[in-house]
Amino acid sequence: MLANQQRIEQHIELLSQFTSTPGAGVTRLTYSKEDLNARNYIKEQMLKYGLTVSEDGFGNIFGKLDGTIPNAPSVIVGSHFDSVPNGGAFDGTAGVIIGLEVAALFQENNCQPAYPLEIIALVEEEGSRWGGGLMGSRGMMGLLTNEDFKVLADKDGVLAEDAMISIGLDPSKEKFRDPKTIKAFLELHIEQGPILEEKDIPIGIVEAIVGLTQLEVTIQGKAGHAGTTPMNRRSDALVAAAEIIAAFPKLAIEEGNGTVITTGQLQVFPNGSNVIPDKVVFSVDIRSGKEQHVQNAVEKVEELIASKQTTDILTSTEQLLYISPKEMDQHIQSIFKETSNDLVIPYCSINSGAGHDAMVFSDFTACGMIFIPSKDGLSHCPEEWSDGSHLASGANIVFQTALKLTEGNK
Amino acid sequence: MLANQQRIEQHIELLSQFTSTPGAGVTRLTYSKEDLNARNYIKEQMLKYGLTVSEDGFGNIFGKLDGTIPNAPSVIVGSHFDSVPNGGAFDGTAGVIIGLEVAALFQENNCQPAYPLEIIALVEEEGSRWGGGLMGSRGMMGLLTNEDFKVLADKDGVLAEDAMISIGLDPSKEKFRDPKTIKAFLELHIEQGPILEEKDIPIGIVEAIVGLTQLEVTIQGKAGHAGTTPMNRRSDALVAAAEIIAAFPKLAIEEGNGTVITTGQLQVFPNGSNVIPDKVVFSVDIRSGKEQHVQNAVEKVEELIASKQTTDILTSTEQLLYISPKEMDQHIQSIFKETSNDLVIPYCSINSGAGHDAMVFSDFTACGMIFIPSKDGLSHCPEEWSDGSHLASGANIVFQTALKLTEGNK
Repeated sequence: MLANQQRIEQHIELLSQFTSTPGAGVTRLTYSKEDLNARNYIKEQMLKYGLTVSEDGFGNIFGKLDGTIPNAPSVIVGSHFDSVPNGGAFDGTAGVIIGLEVAALFQENNCQPAYPLEIIALVEEEGSRWGGGLMGSRGMMGLLTNEDFKVLADKDGVLAEDAMISIGLDPSKEKFRDPKTIKAFLELHIEQGPILEEKDIPIGIVEAIVGLTQLEVTIQGKAGHAGTTPMNRRSDALVAAAEIIAAFPKLAIEEGNGTVITTGQLQVFPNGSNVIPDKVVFSVDIRSGKEQHVQNAVEKVEELIASKQTTDILTSTEQLLYISPKEMDQHIQSIFKETSNDLVIPYCSINSGAGHDAMVFSDFTACGMIFIPSKDGLSHCPEEWSDGSHLASGANIVFQTALKLTEGNK
Repeated sequence: MLANQQRIEQHIELLSQFTSTPGAGVTRLTYSKEDLNARNYIKEQMLKYGLTVSEDGFGNIFGKLDGTIPNAPSVIVGSHFDSVPNGGAFDGTAGVIIGLEVAALFQENNCQPAYPLEIIALVEEEGSRWGGGLMGSRGMMGLLTNEDFKVLADKDGVLAEDAMISIGLDPSKEKFRDPKTIKAFLELHIEQGPILEEKDIPIGIVEAIVGLTQLEVTIQGKAGHAGTTPMNRRSDALVAAAEIIAAFPKLAIEEGNGTVITTGQLQVFPNGSNVIPDKVVFSVDIRSGKEQHVQNAVEKVEELIASKQTTDILTSTEQLLYISPKEMDQHIQSIFKETSNDLVIPYCSINSGAGHDAMVFSDFTACGMIFIPSKDGLSHCPEEWSDGSHLASGANIVFQTALKLTEGNK
């Protein structure tokens, strides 16, 4: 009753070939030729494992094994199968393949679920072609209207609906999925960070997908000639910005609990080597697993920025984005832990620093997420890699958990 | 025997009208229609004040009052008459006008110099059309070869020689001026900084034009996802750069003696709000009046940068430019001071943080520079402004100094 590592690795290998950039990582944009080829492969496997295959009005793929209870809600297992440009073979795809492996194990072990089991392969989580991200899950849950979808166009001006039709999908199909028809959602994903590898633990049981806020900070100083303006007469916007950014690591570490603060984007004006900068605009990305820590960090960052304000240095902060942390279901976390213990697979609790489809589903149903280690913490690049044995361990835990959740007496 | 403030102000007013951007500051590019109009005005005034007018193969204008000693070297007074785009009416032009005023005072007072007096109006100090800067003075002193000049083209592809011909200048004229024919060079210029205004002193006697070095610093860190990389696992190139830049003001102030350190240019890679920066490239502009201070500051900056080096943070520094400080002639500084005392005009010693034509001439002849206050420290903008009374005070000092330097017994 154990997962077949070789079969999993073969799926990874075969799906990785559906890329528009062979030799330069996986590039599989939603509604592309590569999407169609991957889709056909996934649907074929679903049929092979005895599932009833369907697609919704976004092209999300469902493979269903009926349960014995009439009209019972489904336990859904899966992830997304699109990629970023020149990405890797594991991000998203690994979770879809673990879904297929769970279906194979149900079939091989003649498991007859009380609640239906559904394997799902979602479109456009990355947002690489149609923007925004999490389109498949958001769309399913009614967070993207038909009107929004009708006007979606890629960078070449191709409409999403036309792209769907071009690979034989039908955008007029039902798009919305009633949350009442879902009992739980289980997603395995690569960690995309260094923690599990560093700890040498194969399984991370996700407690929460971190809350995220993005600030845009503007520091307005006074320009001046780099040669003729004495140090004590300057209102250098870049020096003020540097003092702020240099203080972020200490501030994040003091807040603790995995709180991270990042400035990834910064622009200097007028950006001349002999002109004292009069304006600097930079991003601040703050994340933490608990809402309180996100809010504390935002407060401290805003205090820090305001402390640089003088007569000649003006600071302003705009909050561009706020997403509260999404806690994963406690009961599912317990089952993951019991199962890992039973299977003698080491695990630890972990937060997800990145967003995932489970983040969307968690507002509608009980969600559980499993992470497996990413080699060197890398993702979104051709070097993205996870170990087959870790994939198999993850598949075993997800399979056992799906078994329990689809049982009649639970 | 005093300068005529009204006449000076009238010259400023009239010359400021030779601009291609009326209502938006002075834009007078070298060899443009505005250059021709300003040139004709300057030559006309020179003739009116009894000077013999000539132009060299760069279009630099000379107005000469012969001395009584045969073949004696000249005392040259002047500055440049080109401007930056949308600049002011004083930068350069004020020094040319003070030259004209000195000529007028020689004429009005029937001064018969032993050494010739020459008033000079130089082209292309700003480098706004033909690049590089200081072209008129550098060319005259043989630092720009005929071959270099022949290939100079502006952003529209117009060759400098063709532009000269189009306004009636002759590029085949003699370009080089034998340094032996120059006894001294006196230049009045606006300060372009806030010091004189802050001290409420009308005259700055320049001790040195500061030495200048420009470094390009590259910090190479490691990229990572802003959400999934814990603070203690980061090699954030921007945080390292911020720590360095935030420390520059303290470092410059500790070095003292007017040392200034500026980062005006900075670029972040890949510059995505959710990606930890893996590379930052920034400029460091270091200036001081004494070579030792420039060198000390460079050493301390390089130490500071190197101190951020770790296994995963690599730093490198390239010196793009090094110009040693140029000391102004001690004897001329003494005459400026004596003259100021005689005329009861308050003065102070000052360094020039910006480059000037006197910087070029100082390698070939005795140079003296006088600064007058810039309103709000501003220059290179339409708001650039200096007081007529300060211009007159400057003219009086330069006139008396020129008188002494052109005397036979000196």
